[in-house]
Amino acid sequence: MGFILDFEKLIKEVQEFEGVSRKSSIDNVINLLGEAYNVSGDVIIDIGDDASAVDIGNNQVILVAADGIWGQIMNVNPYWAGYCSVLVNVNDIAAMGGKPLAMVNIMSISNDEIYEELLTGIKDGCMKFGVPMVGGHLHPDAECDSVGVAIVGIAQKDKLITSFGAKTGDKVIVAIDLDGKPHEMFKLNWDTTYDKDAKLVQDQITAVQYLAENDYIKAGKDISNPGILGTLEMLLETSGKGANVNLSDIPRNESVPWADWLKSYPGSGFVFTAPEDKCDFIKEYLAKYSIEANVVGEVTDELTLNVTYEGQTIEVFDQNKNPVFKL
Amino acid sequence: MGFILDFEKLIKEVQEFEGVSRKSSIDNVINLLGEAYNVSGDVIIDIGDDASAVDIGNNQVILVAADGIWGQIMNVNPYWAGYCSVLVNVNDIAAMGGKPLAMVNIMSISNDEIYEELLTGIKDGCMKFGVPMVGGHLHPDAECDSVGVAIVGIAQKDKLITSFGAKTGDKVIVAIDLDGKPHEMFKLNWDTTYDKDAKLVQDQITAVQYLAENDYIKAGKDISNPGILGTLEMLLETSGKGANVNLSDIPRNESVPWADWLKSYPGSGFVFTAPEDKCDFIKEYLAKYSIEANVVGEVTDELTLNVTYEGQTIEVFDQNKNPVFKL
Repeated sequence: MGFILDFEKLIKEVQEFEGVSRKSSIDNVINLLGEAYNVSGDVIIDIGDDASAVDIGNNQVILVAADGIWGQIMNVNPYWAGYCSVLVNVNDIAAMGGKPLAMVNIMSISNDEIYEELLTGIKDGCMKFGVPMVGGHLHPDAECDSVGVAIVGIAQKDKLITSFGAKTGDKVIVAIDLDGKPHEMFKLNWDTTYDKDAKLVQDQITAVQYLAENDYIKAGKDISNPGILGTLEMLLETSGKGANVNLSDIPRNESVPWADWLKSYPGSGFVFTAPEDKCDFIKEYLAKYSIEANVVGEVTDELTLNVTYEGQTIEVFDQNKNPVFKL
Repeated sequence: MGFILDFEKLIKEVQEFEGVSRKSSIDNVINLLGEAYNVSGDVIIDIGDDASAVDIGNNQVILVAADGIWGQIMNVNPYWAGYCSVLVNVNDIAAMGGKPLAMVNIMSISNDEIYEELLTGIKDGCMKFGVPMVGGHLHPDAECDSVGVAIVGIAQKDKLITSFGAKTGDKVIVAIDLDGKPHEMFKLNWDTTYDKDAKLVQDQITAVQYLAENDYIKAGKDISNPGILGTLEMLLETSGKGANVNLSDIPRNESVPWADWLKSYPGSGFVFTAPEDKCDFIKEYLAKYSIEANVVGEVTDELTLNVTYEGQTIEVFDQNKNPVFKL
């Protein structure tokens, strides 16, 4: 009976996943920073999205994001930490429908050997994604090792993909590059870029930008540490919406069991919402760039994310009971 | 005889100052990142300046910089570390003649108490300088505490103040706000902003932008950890020039002894180079914003920085023998 999916157990695993629970520390930042979020008056998106957006006039916005890499990756494989620090930042800009311009890094290093591997990983990431690392700051005498990267991008102000834009009745789309493999040391890293041609990897970023600039997609996020359902829930919470999703419609590489798949961080993966009449084009367009997009459900007015499998429906997240963001 | 300055001892202190020697680790970053510095082709300034510049068309560049705070400040006074993390980044954009747009932060935190003080300092810095902190990344379960901030600004491409622009025969200008006091815990922090009205602090940034946009200043840097002479040397090394400087012409608050003054990190302080006919206007204009600017010497073709005091001249830095950057 090994082929029967224990659906209840699967959903429990998603709810208790560290990638979801770790997001809660964000609330304190918001309380403490308070009014500093928009002291200049030209910030149009601050917290709650993959990147923040600052109006620079002429219908242009500058996108800014910062992301770090979990210490557990840094300690075990600094090369991969460096590579991923580029990947996660580039995806933050892609998920807004923007064009990545440049990155800077902030490193704390206690050990020179780690440092070389880390920088080599960063360099290889830059070459793969075609985004320059133009500077940074090094804490050379740190007591521990960590890497953070900040990225800047540019987008058209009225063409942004945001986390605020999901509308009741929109279809939910999960879009993932299925041509990959779990990283040999980190099985939840669904690696789709490392062995792939740089041109195709960069075209995947540009493809999302194209769908944004041509009004196909207005709402979305890149799938990150919280996994597919955790990322969707973040999008829904920011938009003040819920959704009903069919598990079986989520694109999956069948070599990966569902429990791992739902918690994976894909090299190229997004959740979008879009009106029904845009969905076919989105699917066909992304398929050209090795990204399988599928309609997996619908946005609702309820503040819950419900997942159905073989006739059974389970509430995975409730924005009042167990939100991913603790806003 | 306590009033007689031991000039040789003073220069030796400057040469051996940790703020100068710590810069050397930068060389390794450059070697390892190599071609990743300009993989996209639109980076016009990368390493070696206060901020990097990316061409976005229409004679506009996006400026990006990242800076951290020494662990010794973070461990002793996290509030001040947070405040300064804003100050140093804003000054990086000001020193390019740019307008600061937004910041993001990357924090490693092992201790919740430090975290609150750090964020409160960041918030107060944002309010003082009028620049928003729009996001960030937190390593919540780090083994040590550190803070890094990245900043984005915007400038006119043909009006940038760079570290590459010092020309033989230009005058060297040191410009410092003398209305301040040493921080009570960190005597080398010449604090000129904390007790000052936010409007004047923000006007100081805008004043440098004005001088850049109106072609008064083409080369300069903000005075940072390496101090007045160390920062000037960095500017000269990047430009491939030297300079002769008269110690007594350097603007100084006389309550601070020379040895501390030359190593201080001012809240608002810059070294510029400019043609002689621009110098009077620069002095008068900055004086309106509480910044005392003075011509302290001249740029030369030699690759040495020489300082003269009461008829005695000492070579402080030689780009072949003891450069600040080890490029």
